[in-house]
Amino acid sequence: MKWDELGTEDCPVARGLSVIGDRWTMLVLRDCFLGIRRFDDMQSRLGITRHVLADRLRKLETSGVLRREKYQDRPERFEYRLTERGKALYPVLISLIAWAEDNVPAPGGSSLRLVSRETGEEIAPVLTDARTGQRITHRDVRPITRP
Amino acid sequence: MKWDELGTEDCPVARGLSVIGDRWTMLVLRDCFLGIRRFDDMQSRLGITRHVLADRLRKLETSGVLRREKYQDRPERFEYRLTERGKALYPVLISLIAWAEDNVPAPGGSSLRLVSRETGEEIAPVLTDARTGQRITHRDVRPITRP
Repeated sequence: MKWDELGTEDCPVARGLSVIGDRWTMLVLRDCFLGIRRFDDMQSRLGITRHVLADRLRKLETSGVLRREKYQDRPERFEYRLTERGKALYPVLISLIAWAEDNVPAPGGSSLRLVSRETGEEIAPVLTDARTGQRITHRDVRPITRP
Repeated sequence: MKWDELGTEDCPVARGLSVIGDRWTMLVLRDCFLGIRRFDDMQSRLGITRHVLADRLRKLETSGVLRREKYQDRPERFEYRLTERGKALYPVLISLIAWAEDNVPAPGGSSLRLVSRETGEEIAPVLTDARTGQRITHRDVRPITRP
């Protein structure tokens, strides 16, 4: 496998990672889900160089995860919004968060709580099979690979 | 945020990515979930250098996601197995696969099918709230952040 050919691999893990397989990319997406839309806000939150941030945003735009929208004319200013394809990444982010809260606890306590808009209670995310309603673990699934 | 301090950030996304925020790392984990346990097998499947693979395996061992087990004495040979912490990453991998199958289709068709061991049918993974049984989307959740 070659790094820059991951996007056309038959393996879905490789294809997924061709879009989000980078730390800063996922942290940019986190900010998008938190409602941060502007370059300068992201940059000051993430503390990465403008160059790196611009590169990740451009790639996410190219792959259809974010769209750039003009919100001011003079000077021209843009904000970044999640597309439907981007919003569909939410379960990946939430699964990662759930895993990290359980397995990589924060020394100073977590900075994030996810609560249900409906009940106000903290959510307890689990992956289930829509067909059966059963929880999915690696024990319940057989992977069938085509070489 | 600094790359090598992500693991102690308060933000769970950063902490999660401190362990798996790298393409090769997730592809190594994919192989582990497929039952591949030996260095040479992984290396020939991934086509990455021995150096990169050894580095990623060492990091995953250090963070408690994989354990190394000796399976032969002379010469000493080891295999890599998922720990409980590693197995808990399954929902992250499955969410990524589901997203990629929907949003980054393979030109030659996907190489992977995930079927239920119980029913033999393809699984349809969705993220739900264990408390309510409802599907979780970004619309249903309010993130509460502590600065």
